[in-house]
Amino acid sequence: MIAKPEFVASTSRTPLPNSRRVHVAGTLHPDVRVPMREVEQAPTRRRDGLGEANEPVRVYDCSGPWGDPDFDGDVTRGLPALRRDWIARRGDVAEYEGRASRPMDNGYLSEQHAQYASHAERNRLVEFPGLRRRPVRASAGHPVTQLWYARQGIVTPEMEFVAIRENQGLERLREAAGATGRDDLRHQHPAPDPASPYTPSVFRRFPQRIPRVITPEFVRDEVAAGRAIIPVNVNHPECEPMAIGRNFLVKINANIGNSAVASSIEEEVEKMRWATKWGADTVMDLSTGKNIHATREWILRNSPVPIGTVPIYQALEKVGGRAEELTWELYRDTLVEQCEQGVDYFTIHAGVLLRFVPLTARRRTGIVSRGGSIMAKWCLAHHRENFLYTHWDEICEVMAAYDVSFSIGDGLRPGSIADANDEAQFGELRVQGELTRRAWNRGVQVMNEGPGHVPMHLIEENMANQLEWCGEAPFYTLGPLTTDIAPGHDHVTSGIGAAMIGWYGCAMLCYVTPKEHLGLPNRDDVKEGVITYKIAAHAADLAKGHPGAQYRDNALSKARFEFRWDDQFNLGLDPERAREFHDETLPQEGAKTAHFCSMCGPHFCSMKITEDVRKFAAEQGVAAEEALQKGLEAKSREFVEAGAEVYSKA
Amino acid sequence: MIAKPEFVASTSRTPLPNSRRVHVAGTLHPDVRVPMREVEQAPTRRRDGLGEANEPVRVYDCSGPWGDPDFDGDVTRGLPALRRDWIARRGDVAEYEGRASRPMDNGYLSEQHAQYASHAERNRLVEFPGLRRRPVRASAGHPVTQLWYARQGIVTPEMEFVAIRENQGLERLREAAGATGRDDLRHQHPAPDPASPYTPSVFRRFPQRIPRVITPEFVRDEVAAGRAIIPVNVNHPECEPMAIGRNFLVKINANIGNSAVASSIEEEVEKMRWATKWGADTVMDLSTGKNIHATREWILRNSPVPIGTVPIYQALEKVGGRAEELTWELYRDTLVEQCEQGVDYFTIHAGVLLRFVPLTARRRTGIVSRGGSIMAKWCLAHHRENFLYTHWDEICEVMAAYDVSFSIGDGLRPGSIADANDEAQFGELRVQGELTRRAWNRGVQVMNEGPGHVPMHLIEENMANQLEWCGEAPFYTLGPLTTDIAPGHDHVTSGIGAAMIGWYGCAMLCYVTPKEHLGLPNRDDVKEGVITYKIAAHAADLAKGHPGAQYRDNALSKARFEFRWDDQFNLGLDPERAREFHDETLPQEGAKTAHFCSMCGPHFCSMKITEDVRKFAAEQGVAAEEALQKGLEAKSREFVEAGAEVYSKA
Repeated sequence: MIAKPEFVASTSRTPLPNSRRVHVAGTLHPDVRVPMREVEQAPTRRRDGLGEANEPVRVYDCSGPWGDPDFDGDVTRGLPALRRDWIARRGDVAEYEGRASRPMDNGYLSEQHAQYASHAERNRLVEFPGLRRRPVRASAGHPVTQLWYARQGIVTPEMEFVAIRENQGLERLREAAGATGRDDLRHQHPAPDPASPYTPSVFRRFPQRIPRVITPEFVRDEVAAGRAIIPVNVNHPECEPMAIGRNFLVKINANIGNSAVASSIEEEVEKMRWATKWGADTVMDLSTGKNIHATREWILRNSPVPIGTVPIYQALEKVGGRAEELTWELYRDTLVEQCEQGVDYFTIHAGVLLRFVPLTARRRTGIVSRGGSIMAKWCLAHHRENFLYTHWDEICEVMAAYDVSFSIGDGLRPGSIADANDEAQFGELRVQGELTRRAWNRGVQVMNEGPGHVPMHLIEENMANQLEWCGEAPFYTLGPLTTDIAPGHDHVTSGIGAAMIGWYGCAMLCYVTPKEHLGLPNRDDVKEGVITYKIAAHAADLAKGHPGAQYRDNALSKARFEFRWDDQFNLGLDPERAREFHDETLPQEGAKTAHFCSMCGPHFCSMKITEDVRKFAAEQGVAAEEALQKGLEAKSREFVEAGAEVYSKA
Repeated sequence: MIAKPEFVASTSRTPLPNSRRVHVAGTLHPDVRVPMREVEQAPTRRRDGLGEANEPVRVYDCSGPWGDPDFDGDVTRGLPALRRDWIARRGDVAEYEGRASRPMDNGYLSEQHAQYASHAERNRLVEFPGLRRRPVRASAGHPVTQLWYARQGIVTPEMEFVAIRENQGLERLREAAGATGRDDLRHQHPAPDPASPYTPSVFRRFPQRIPRVITPEFVRDEVAAGRAIIPVNVNHPECEPMAIGRNFLVKINANIGNSAVASSIEEEVEKMRWATKWGADTVMDLSTGKNIHATREWILRNSPVPIGTVPIYQALEKVGGRAEELTWELYRDTLVEQCEQGVDYFTIHAGVLLRFVPLTARRRTGIVSRGGSIMAKWCLAHHRENFLYTHWDEICEVMAAYDVSFSIGDGLRPGSIADANDEAQFGELRVQGELTRRAWNRGVQVMNEGPGHVPMHLIEENMANQLEWCGEAPFYTLGPLTTDIAPGHDHVTSGIGAAMIGWYGCAMLCYVTPKEHLGLPNRDDVKEGVITYKIAAHAADLAKGHPGAQYRDNALSKARFEFRWDDQFNLGLDPERAREFHDETLPQEGAKTAHFCSMCGPHFCSMKITEDVRKFAAEQGVAAEEALQKGLEAKSREFVEAGAEVYSKA
């Protein structure tokens, strides 16, 4: 493995500028403390000396304890077990002697092989040194899933955590509006009108249900209906609960993972921290090759966000990469192994049925999902139905005992524009729907994976079909990429599709980095992918009319309008880059508070003129038509006499 | 002015890899020769030794003679006057002694001032040294616009040029399909179905009219109806004609321009070449400060694409930046100055009416358009109606005499999500519609500018209102940005909106670079902006079902599927970056032809497995259901016996 020093020298804990960590406490569950990042703002400066304070802005924060300057942990000890007491209080899980770890779990034939390999630098096997807990699993004869609790009418601490988290800074803003009389929520678009001709048809068939304030009870109801999941394995108590569902904020996933070609354990842990710093809501560990088990342990013990995996990847390693040698027993053992470690959701390609495989032969790009290919190969080699499909109920039993959520894979997703929305893809999606219902019957939380490569005009149909066929279970898509012709820029080709499908109702967007199709992402690529997808998710939240979305745009735009450059940088998704770009043109510190921007130069600035217009209209204190009558001419004289200067003399 | 060496050391003429310049000749006008870039491809390699040739792919090329290795010109001589004979043959223009250039045109008070300033390095005034032609203008008592010719039923060489250009490589592909029996156009989505519930409502009200093959007559018809423009000033004979219209390929514009803060003439010319190399269909010169006239001359004489300007910027310089001192006479003189130089379209903010100005006071971010602010300031200072509005017919007279197209500005475009689709914005858009009809009456070509910052769910309404109120004249938007919260990444926030509005029918997308809101773009930013917008435009072309769009995706995806790495790189929008990214993970040249990619490693690759599936199904030679019956079991044995190996031994 090639340890890239850039990742080992961590900067992921450097706090974002002018920000502090705050916690909002629960009321149903007083030990619920939801972390948020609060960005301080400077007051507004006016030429007349009358300024105003600007409320700090609270934003959703995925970085967990790593983003808290007061936290002094390190990666060898792992994160505190935030949810331990919540899980214990329910009294329905018990510790047990877990499955014994085997050399094969890390890709070795024997202990000797593992020992030997650990001497070679490129295959260094580093066991996670921190506290090793014994695993827990269901012990009271019922699933220990958030779905099961929700159906019993139980509002878990996890649900209250999610409710507070989803409201982001709204509560704070509403309080401030009450105290100051200024309502920063005023400049907000109304919720989209379902009757408008511009409202996509998917909303008429499947109405949104986003309330003005997210309550714990609303979260419970959405989880109970299967419209949202809270992926939290009982063996991942470090995880801060979050919800994936159409009536919540759109989430994003970042993929990490070593591969046979490059990367190391340290690098993967740091990638996870780095991705969550910039806003990854979940992280998938797609490691292949050696040390999969050890890498995952490191990641899980240090991850504040849910971790997803594709267990067939590890199972395949255990049979030396020969898909046809995969067996149900070996796969089941791998599931248990990962359940015990604490993986929060599994991608399982159970919808790749034998009868769909030949359909892919007519495609432009066949099967491009790795999991899909593995299962297709197995089906062809054995001429038998996909064992993930035939053992589905048993898989559900395992997952219900740990509260691992399904992410039912789309093994036949289109790998090119030409293959979008074809028979193979939609055939599998219908099967995903069948599997979803069977999982729900056994109390397991479910989301469905989706494409892929889809031109813009075929995206909505994907969302509508998924909602219809999969009973409104959350959808989780990779992009989709809206064109094939831009390798090196596929974060953009896919960011477009991601924003659109997020608007239509997709609950989580799997990021794509600029390296997609070309190589493994480095630190910069991970950040670029995460930020691009935060943009897509937030654009979707705005378009959905999520009440907790627009206030951040409003605050940033006000800062921009008032030339509070630092605030503009700090309220953005990427304060570092914004400042760096501004510095390139106007490096002087004074320029950060100047009443002009670098585009038009100091002599003339449109924003500045608007201040004059506003002042003028405000002085009229009246609406447009009246204003024109109330001595506009007199005002115009005064304006000219005053020098009609644009550049502030303040 | 700060000359950035990176721009002076030109690499804009380095040809794109494995490409050659081809020309397609006209039939109506044999001296029409349309340049295209043809990308060669390697043959398909198969394990069984039976490969196939892959047709070269022709793509739209904006780089003009600079992209032709046979062209030996240089910037001091300018480009050949491609259209000189076409213009002369029409016999309706005459040379005349143009307006005398004045020191004021370049921002100087007097000749002496200009002389003095030219000694200071930072204000070096470099006159364009090449051939100075006398200007021409209409001399036969009628407009010399493409609109006028189209209405007379005349198919100009410009129209035939556009028709051939719009078909891109389609003709070549159809010929190849006839010759080889393999139809690369087969894997193509059908044209979008207007009756589908997923077809946006704007298409039902304003149907698309994209034909399977673009003919010169179709171009004429669209121009005559005002649905498309061909911006080609009779004084810019270097320009290669292109069309901006909803039933053509979506175009993109790149802004360049020095400002008071930074940049030089050399840099601007090189920026123009650089932008067109990556695909800018038009370029706007938004220079402010000194040497505006000289900079523009350099750009025009070297530009193969239409050049747009905002004449009020130069007029404002002439009055020392004091908006209230602007006069109609000075503005008109500036228009003539730029018409004589050859500017192809003018942004004119004539829709910013006095009565709209106070409406902006209630906004979150007031007036953010520079042109809009200038006119608002003028209106307020004089308490009179916008002189661009009151002199509209006279402006039309000037522009009709040179065939300069209108780009009616949106001075009140929203500068934040909060201000989208408000009264001020839509009030101005209605006036743009009135101005459009008046311009059409005088034979002038028109497009309308649009926003700005708009959340996704409010974008379609912009397009529908523009089509309705402006009589289906082409729409030309800046983005729109779909969120305000990502300064430093606004090429992405706006690329999302640009792709969507392009799909809905926007004809041209004004690019946004990563530096938007923060500083002036450098070389990398220009490229990033152009490529992002090419992605948006192409994604829109695919979604519109443009027949000349998907074949490039298909070719690239086939190359990707067949592990023809070099072809995959070369067929993309950014071959350099694609190769560079691949090199980072797998630098060996052998990896460029390897049967695996860096993501999954050499041992297992999904694309490889698919080859097996395809081979299997192809051997069956039948459809799915039959295949399963025709001895699938036998085949599966054979597959295992053959080793079931994924990694090619070839």
